[in-house]
Amino acid sequence: MEEFKITFLPENKSVHIDRGTDLLTAALKTSIHIYNSCGGEGVCGRCKVIVKKGDYITEGSGRITEIEREKGYVLACRTTPESDMEILVPEESMLGDLEILTEEIKAKRLAGLYTPVEEIEEERHKATAKIFKHGPLSTKIFLKLPNPTIDDNSGDADRLLGEIKKRHKEINIIQMGLSNIKKLPRLLRESGWEVTATIGNRNKTTEVVLIESGDRSKKNFGVAVDIGTTTIVAYLVDLDSQKVLGSKASYNPQVDFGEDVISRIIFAQHEKGLEKLHHAVIDTVNTLIDSLIKEVKLTLDDVTAVICAGNTTMTHLLLKIDPAYIRKEPYIPAVNFMPVIRAAEAGVKINPRGLLACLPCIGSYVGGDIVAGVLASGMDKIKDLSLFIDLGTNGEVVLGNKEWLMSCSTSAGPCFEGGGLKSGIRAMKGAIQNISIKNNLIKCQTIGDLPPKGICGSGIVDIISELLKNKIIDRSGKIKNNKIYNIRDSEGAKEIVLVEAKDSAINKDITIDENDIKNLIHSKGAIYTGIEVLLKEAGLKKSDIKHIFIAGGLGTALNIRSAINIGLLPDLPEENFVFLGNTSVAGAKTCLLSSEAMEAAETIANKMTYLDLSTSASFMNNYSAALFLPHTDIEMFPSVKKILNTV
Amino acid sequence: MEEFKITFLPENKSVHIDRGTDLLTAALKTSIHIYNSCGGEGVCGRCKVIVKKGDYITEGSGRITEIEREKGYVLACRTTPESDMEILVPEESMLGDLEILTEEIKAKRLAGLYTPVEEIEEERHKATAKIFKHGPLSTKIFLKLPNPTIDDNSGDADRLLGEIKKRHKEINIIQMGLSNIKKLPRLLRESGWEVTATIGNRNKTTEVVLIESGDRSKKNFGVAVDIGTTTIVAYLVDLDSQKVLGSKASYNPQVDFGEDVISRIIFAQHEKGLEKLHHAVIDTVNTLIDSLIKEVKLTLDDVTAVICAGNTTMTHLLLKIDPAYIRKEPYIPAVNFMPVIRAAEAGVKINPRGLLACLPCIGSYVGGDIVAGVLASGMDKIKDLSLFIDLGTNGEVVLGNKEWLMSCSTSAGPCFEGGGLKSGIRAMKGAIQNISIKNNLIKCQTIGDLPPKGICGSGIVDIISELLKNKIIDRSGKIKNNKIYNIRDSEGAKEIVLVEAKDSAINKDITIDENDIKNLIHSKGAIYTGIEVLLKEAGLKKSDIKHIFIAGGLGTALNIRSAINIGLLPDLPEENFVFLGNTSVAGAKTCLLSSEAMEAAETIANKMTYLDLSTSASFMNNYSAALFLPHTDIEMFPSVKKILNTV
Repeated sequence: MEEFKITFLPENKSVHIDRGTDLLTAALKTSIHIYNSCGGEGVCGRCKVIVKKGDYITEGSGRITEIEREKGYVLACRTTPESDMEILVPEESMLGDLEILTEEIKAKRLAGLYTPVEEIEEERHKATAKIFKHGPLSTKIFLKLPNPTIDDNSGDADRLLGEIKKRHKEINIIQMGLSNIKKLPRLLRESGWEVTATIGNRNKTTEVVLIESGDRSKKNFGVAVDIGTTTIVAYLVDLDSQKVLGSKASYNPQVDFGEDVISRIIFAQHEKGLEKLHHAVIDTVNTLIDSLIKEVKLTLDDVTAVICAGNTTMTHLLLKIDPAYIRKEPYIPAVNFMPVIRAAEAGVKINPRGLLACLPCIGSYVGGDIVAGVLASGMDKIKDLSLFIDLGTNGEVVLGNKEWLMSCSTSAGPCFEGGGLKSGIRAMKGAIQNISIKNNLIKCQTIGDLPPKGICGSGIVDIISELLKNKIIDRSGKIKNNKIYNIRDSEGAKEIVLVEAKDSAINKDITIDENDIKNLIHSKGAIYTGIEVLLKEAGLKKSDIKHIFIAGGLGTALNIRSAINIGLLPDLPEENFVFLGNTSVAGAKTCLLSSEAMEAAETIANKMTYLDLSTSASFMNNYSAALFLPHTDIEMFPSVKKILNTV
Repeated sequence: MEEFKITFLPENKSVHIDRGTDLLTAALKTSIHIYNSCGGEGVCGRCKVIVKKGDYITEGSGRITEIEREKGYVLACRTTPESDMEILVPEESMLGDLEILTEEIKAKRLAGLYTPVEEIEEERHKATAKIFKHGPLSTKIFLKLPNPTIDDNSGDADRLLGEIKKRHKEINIIQMGLSNIKKLPRLLRESGWEVTATIGNRNKTTEVVLIESGDRSKKNFGVAVDIGTTTIVAYLVDLDSQKVLGSKASYNPQVDFGEDVISRIIFAQHEKGLEKLHHAVIDTVNTLIDSLIKEVKLTLDDVTAVICAGNTTMTHLLLKIDPAYIRKEPYIPAVNFMPVIRAAEAGVKINPRGLLACLPCIGSYVGGDIVAGVLASGMDKIKDLSLFIDLGTNGEVVLGNKEWLMSCSTSAGPCFEGGGLKSGIRAMKGAIQNISIKNNLIKCQTIGDLPPKGICGSGIVDIISELLKNKIIDRSGKIKNNKIYNIRDSEGAKEIVLVEAKDSAINKDITIDENDIKNLIHSKGAIYTGIEVLLKEAGLKKSDIKHIFIAGGLGTALNIRSAINIGLLPDLPEENFVFLGNTSVAGAKTCLLSSEAMEAAETIANKMTYLDLSTSASFMNNYSAALFLPHTDIEMFPSVKKILNTV
């Protein structure tokens, strides 16, 4: 078959591909990650590239404007070469690279996560991580074994297990595998009968994971990982001192195969699709662990346990379990309660005998990340009614208290992660994260205070709120004619220029149009309706909610006032809202350090009921009413009514 | 290096070996198994071969007589070639082949094993295998799972485990591994939610071993194996109907590396020694299983569980655990209570997910075969005092009742298996198994009524008893001058010709000399003293023993009267002796069919104390007194005293 050389600029990376292979696939082969949210199905229109040289065949797409077409823009996923080509990947189509995000997360978002507890009220404080008894997934204990004699002649393995049981009376069943038994006789004698046993909690029994010579009891480390659909975050934890020694984050490279869980489930059905998705996440987890341990000069062998929290699809892909039936009615995962396995079995590189546990999931669309979040929030331990909201691609909502928990998942779409909007980008350097309009001037504040590249989630919430407050849009989201702002027509919809090309980092206007606003309204409406349906199901009202916990990357930058203004969050006193940041990794860390916490997570998973909104009549009824700013029924948002009347 | 071609006759098998490689090693490479009991150390003198052609270097050995030397006899293990050679392996140096032994075992020895219970008294009957509740190591259960719905949306794995727990309320902890979870979603849907789960008892927890489509609950098979030092015996068992479907036996090919456990432990220290020993036993077990399942037209996948019983060294070698410290003071095995593992982990070929369990051991020299034996005898369940004797290379003795059990191991040597004697052979076709002297005529009865090749264990006990009764030897074992029999000098010791060369199958006289008798006296003395020491330790006397259970291959052919006459067995009423045959495989079978029995085996192992005779002063004192026929103190054997005075 004919081969063509494709060169990607500005990186100047080349690859040879067969005729018929699309440019998105070609880019992947050179490790260039082009933004796309549909998995290369030609739907999302995010993988725009500019053809600089060469012949090609491309499918027409409504996602490419006439002006763009003239400039040589094509969708990478819909374009195949007919000759060697040179392709420019515009910055807005590139995924920001790991370092930028890591730094950003370190500086702004993750920083607050180590000690969220201190910031919040006493009752919740008591309920969170710190109250769980220290008892990591794997513990190292130093043993001085009595020397064997003619009269004390039990087998080496039996002697070791006996001593552990003597020291840990709470252990019921203890196991040791063949590979450890094989090493034991020599090890015991060479170490003068002084060894360190690593014991792990494995599926309700205790396993001798590892045996080392001498006293290694203080050298025990674990990793807590949040496997997000978009971002993967890992903490390195000293399992003995309970200190977090470092944190790293990376994009989830699975985005190359589709931005949301549904497109990844579909991709998993392709040939080798599941394998590719699995390796993408595992490789990233391994890279994160590796760089974490290098930073503090440890070795992989020192790491004996990993706990991951992710949504149900992410957890399936991590373990290489086909998630096919998650998206087929009646939406059943292969497993909610994952067994504790050897990390190596999933390809996770730590000590070859180290363990891997996953936070249990509730159902197909409420996963271990939410269980971790509820655990980290402590809402399952307090009498007051709390609401937990994870603002991600899936907006998961949990309502409940120490007696009961009820959850649902709303397909919020990628809006809050910068997706699905013309100028939307992820929360990377140069992303507009806050916007205000003062004296008719649009003022943007970007991450890193750099020239803007686009708008991320919190910025989008802000701009809609500001446009509404300033009556530039009406409550249905339509842009009104207005001489002050740069408003123009774009493919039949009006758009407002927020930042002109000359002031931007991408040499293009940064805009928001009526379609973007419509998308946002659909997203916020879905989440708000989720809250309403849960309240209705529980026979409670909004004012019964005492705490609202906000989790997810959007977290700390989100302006609560703006979120209430647009009807994303219920109209409750601002002091009742608590930003928890990444509760998924926080909950995973808690479980890594305490078996009690892991049991609490299992109790949460067992206790929590799951409401499937796709079949809920009540959801559909309420949803249409929520597709207004802030809501069709303004009386539900008295503070917003006041603002709108005042301005 | 120079290579020589070595051809072994009469098989006419050839092999090329380097200069310096000995003929025993060369024979092994052609799969010719030459008898040897020292592992090629030049000590036992059993690997005699005749050089027909070629030059060689050989070490002199007292084991080769002058006449033999003239005929070209050399020890294979001490001889290296200097040119191409032709070697004749005389029949007495060959190990009988599998088929002969299998047939023999089937016909004579194993036959009685399937239903030993029927033959013995009521109390013991109640106590044996049949009283244990049916509950195999692995059980297949057919499940019709409720179809999932939007409201009944637990994960596939959780649904399956939940249903099993509902059906089996006794299950406390249930686990399912990742590989089964991965297969589950498709399997459940393709089978219409009707599947068969194989659940196994794995280290005090229940594991879902296997999941199959449809109802396979009646298709579940297991194998019970006795890993003897000399012989390996396997039963194929229908785990559902509890029927034994077939049995097979084979030599333990580890004999190529040494006849007793000590020489094998030493061989295991050689380079790749452990690996060779391990593969030797595993290959044999696999061959036995394979031929068993073919006979009844099953496949390996139908076999989900294997239980092995063997002495401590055999069990270590089976699992490829270095047995080094078993023979170093204070004689500590790596493990007595072996974990249940996946059979594949040890190389045992059944269903790839099937389980392998081993009967627990007591200590370095009392192993799982004895625990199985005690279990099969039922002595641990009855009030009466019983004695259990396993007559093998190690003569293990257990004394006790339902309250307590005490054991010791006597290095009886290979006498009872035909080793260590000039004309001794294993219990193969043509072996003299019973001998009587009537009217001054020596009358030999051979296995298969074939021309004699040598004397096996039971024949040796008989001949010594007959020689003593007929006053051809005195009570110290010295051969008296006597004109009636063919008595002659042989290397400073007198010998009696039992069968002349012309009447033998091996063209050589079959004889017994004073050294043979001395060896036998040492063997029987060791076992008898073991019994005495246990009684003394327990503060009991011989007459307190109500049942004497005889286990081991020697079993059914052994003449109890002869054994008492020579002082091997205590002088108790003959009706108190019960032959149990191969209790190792019988006990293993019982455990395969019943977890209750396996628990009983563990109780036996926990309860049984082990007396190390090598450090027992009482043993050494009594032992010298036992080196007489039947004993220095004839008053301990009143019935023998009577016979000797009568004759």
